[in-house]
Amino acid sequence: MCCCFQKMEYVIKKVLEKNLLNDDQPSVELFDVDYLNGRLDSLLEAFPEPFFEHAMAVKANPLRCVMGIARDRGLGAECASLQEAKHALSLGFAAAKVVYDSPVKTVKELREAIDLGFHTNLDNELEIQQVADYLKEYQGELPVIGLRINPVVGAGDIAMMSTAAKQSKFGLPLLEDTQDRIGKIFKDNSWLTGVHIHVGSQGVPVDKFVAGCERLFQFVEYLEALVPGQIKTVDIGGGLSTSYTEDKEPEEFTYQLYRTYLQERVPMIFSGKYRIVTEFGRSLFLKAGTSLTRVQSVKEWIEDQNPIILTHLGTNQFPREVYLPHIWRHRFSLYTADGDKKEGNEINVDIGGPLCFQGDYLAKEVLLSHPTAGDILAVHDTGAYTMSMYCRFNSILASGIYGYKKINGEIELECFKPRETFEECMQFWGFNKPNQIN
Amino acid sequence: MCCCFQKMEYVIKKVLEKNLLNDDQPSVELFDVDYLNGRLDSLLEAFPEPFFEHAMAVKANPLRCVMGIARDRGLGAECASLQEAKHALSLGFAAAKVVYDSPVKTVKELREAIDLGFHTNLDNELEIQQVADYLKEYQGELPVIGLRINPVVGAGDIAMMSTAAKQSKFGLPLLEDTQDRIGKIFKDNSWLTGVHIHVGSQGVPVDKFVAGCERLFQFVEYLEALVPGQIKTVDIGGGLSTSYTEDKEPEEFTYQLYRTYLQERVPMIFSGKYRIVTEFGRSLFLKAGTSLTRVQSVKEWIEDQNPIILTHLGTNQFPREVYLPHIWRHRFSLYTADGDKKEGNEINVDIGGPLCFQGDYLAKEVLLSHPTAGDILAVHDTGAYTMSMYCRFNSILASGIYGYKKINGEIELECFKPRETFEECMQFWGFNKPNQIN
Repeated sequence: MCCCFQKMEYVIKKVLEKNLLNDDQPSVELFDVDYLNGRLDSLLEAFPEPFFEHAMAVKANPLRCVMGIARDRGLGAECASLQEAKHALSLGFAAAKVVYDSPVKTVKELREAIDLGFHTNLDNELEIQQVADYLKEYQGELPVIGLRINPVVGAGDIAMMSTAAKQSKFGLPLLEDTQDRIGKIFKDNSWLTGVHIHVGSQGVPVDKFVAGCERLFQFVEYLEALVPGQIKTVDIGGGLSTSYTEDKEPEEFTYQLYRTYLQERVPMIFSGKYRIVTEFGRSLFLKAGTSLTRVQSVKEWIEDQNPIILTHLGTNQFPREVYLPHIWRHRFSLYTADGDKKEGNEINVDIGGPLCFQGDYLAKEVLLSHPTAGDILAVHDTGAYTMSMYCRFNSILASGIYGYKKINGEIELECFKPRETFEECMQFWGFNKPNQIN
Repeated sequence: MCCCFQKMEYVIKKVLEKNLLNDDQPSVELFDVDYLNGRLDSLLEAFPEPFFEHAMAVKANPLRCVMGIARDRGLGAECASLQEAKHALSLGFAAAKVVYDSPVKTVKELREAIDLGFHTNLDNELEIQQVADYLKEYQGELPVIGLRINPVVGAGDIAMMSTAAKQSKFGLPLLEDTQDRIGKIFKDNSWLTGVHIHVGSQGVPVDKFVAGCERLFQFVEYLEALVPGQIKTVDIGGGLSTSYTEDKEPEEFTYQLYRTYLQERVPMIFSGKYRIVTEFGRSLFLKAGTSLTRVQSVKEWIEDQNPIILTHLGTNQFPREVYLPHIWRHRFSLYTADGDKKEGNEINVDIGGPLCFQGDYLAKEVLLSHPTAGDILAVHDTGAYTMSMYCRFNSILASGIYGYKKINGEIELECFKPRETFEECMQFWGFNKPNQIN
């Protein structure tokens, strides 16, 4: 048994000892604080220069305790909505390190973002116009305001995660025949001091990220000629890919390798002339998370079919895995009710969730030791983009979340968030709400 | 312009007049109370016998005000989780009319359901055993406890919505070689007084529902010979299909036609010998709902591609439509900022949502009048399985929900639930939570 499974076995036994997995909470979420700190170490070591400002992607894991760890290491917060930006602010992230990136902002949101001092990346000409109108009478100090461009370097393996195809929801497409039109936007709006790309995330090869930066800095050079000195911040986005199939991130997805490529092909990034913002998405968090669920029952009535194990995790926490299983699939491992890893006697099983529709499977054809009701199923690599997509369907209560880390050689658990209560869940359906129209 | 669009135009103007669509709430949810009451009329007229007990599917629309309408018309509540069942109870549904159907129940949940008097449908042998153990010492009056069987009549057009293929997550498969095994479960457990099927929902042709009932009643006859008089309740499920492409439900999806088929092929249903429970899922609610969103911007930079309109509704409220657009697609219509329906000058557009990933499109290739920023987009047929699946991704605040109905010839709006607040949304990420382990 490899060492990461040994560690997991140890943590599961701790969970059982503390009675955190029981009939009241048949599923539980674990978060490896040391792992996240290790990833942060490797990021900060790869890009140590003070002009690098690394932001965590709030959308990947907006859990307050997780965000707090990134904040304490000096990271900023990349935010997909004004709510996420205010969330970060409330946690003590400095406003200037809060990067507000939503593709759909109301005028009121734009103004609020500027008032609060967020680094705001605009998406399109209309937003430019709306901000320009606001700034005519604006008295305060201006935060960084940037424009998102699409470097059009093409899509990665997963279309839905690739933002740099020609047709993209995001930003303005930088093409031979649009460069002057975008340049004019900068020339006409001297408050526009930032430029931003984000090529995509999972499934995008490192080479594409580098190609995006290359194209971006060609454009920055063009802007330097057009509006010398105006550009102060270059936000290169990120979203480095991760591995869902291996227990460690492979060499090709390391921050160090990414830096090496950037140094070779885009040395201007390291000139110190610009504040460089990055956002490495799931790659920081993914392998810190493990979801545990009790196996509630095992169905083996049909002889020529896989047994179905029924668990407490499904579309509620794993919508992409359920709806798009050909793209999103986790590693699984199985433990006895006492927390011992089960090995040998392997068969293919289908893993069903608790939701009332036939499509609700976490995965099919998963090779596991022969399962028994009461076993504990671990879903690995759930530290990003699972709980953050939590879905209210069937009013399933969200798992409690526990961080763990080594203290004096002992693994200690800390409650990041208790299991959701019935009352919290019901609020969403209109409990205790005034029924009035102004 | 057909009359339903005229009505919608009128309602949108009311919404604007009341200032319910604005920069603070750029999307809003509408619910046609008269439509739901009309559907309930047609259901109750088609099946007027007192031994029919119709349950609404809470999972389709768990909104408190919507459930209250069904309750007031005498319906029961079909519940996919114990939370949904307790929700219904808290709203004043009689416990005996609350049907608890989850495929994954803990022992504690099973016991609580029985204590609370819910009509509980068990899913598998383990649950049977767990209830049998509990009942050994049980003193109170027993509610209806049933067993879900899978009539194995095959799948409909949408596999994920079809629960009666041979390999199903749900119930025990009723096959030639399993009938005696299931029969023995009833013989050994005399408290098992109900039997339940649910063939599926959207995409399942009416004929399959009828075939499921036919198979079910063959089994009931078999049980009558084996355990005479034990079966009191037959829950035939339901989930009648609906149309997402037409503005009215077509003839083939009417309750009356379904009754006609049942009368022809399963007359025993109407004998009066059994309490018959139905659950017609989305067919009651679907066309009562309309989602409105402002068109925040329109992107037309790439000449040979569709314009992209960016809106405030995406994966947050429409996960299935975004992830599985080949299966789930709505009708759309476009209105000016003043609420006038736009017509003519039609082009194909792609409709993007507010979420930060490239896949977040409500639909592509939608024929609409040429859109302008500030227009109002209506998404039709959203009364079921959209808000009920609400997804926390990107912390987008859920729309306010407004019911409307005709009172003295005038359409009146009522707030069913105000727009979610920042604080409510943030709760999910662990605001104000004690960080302790017992």
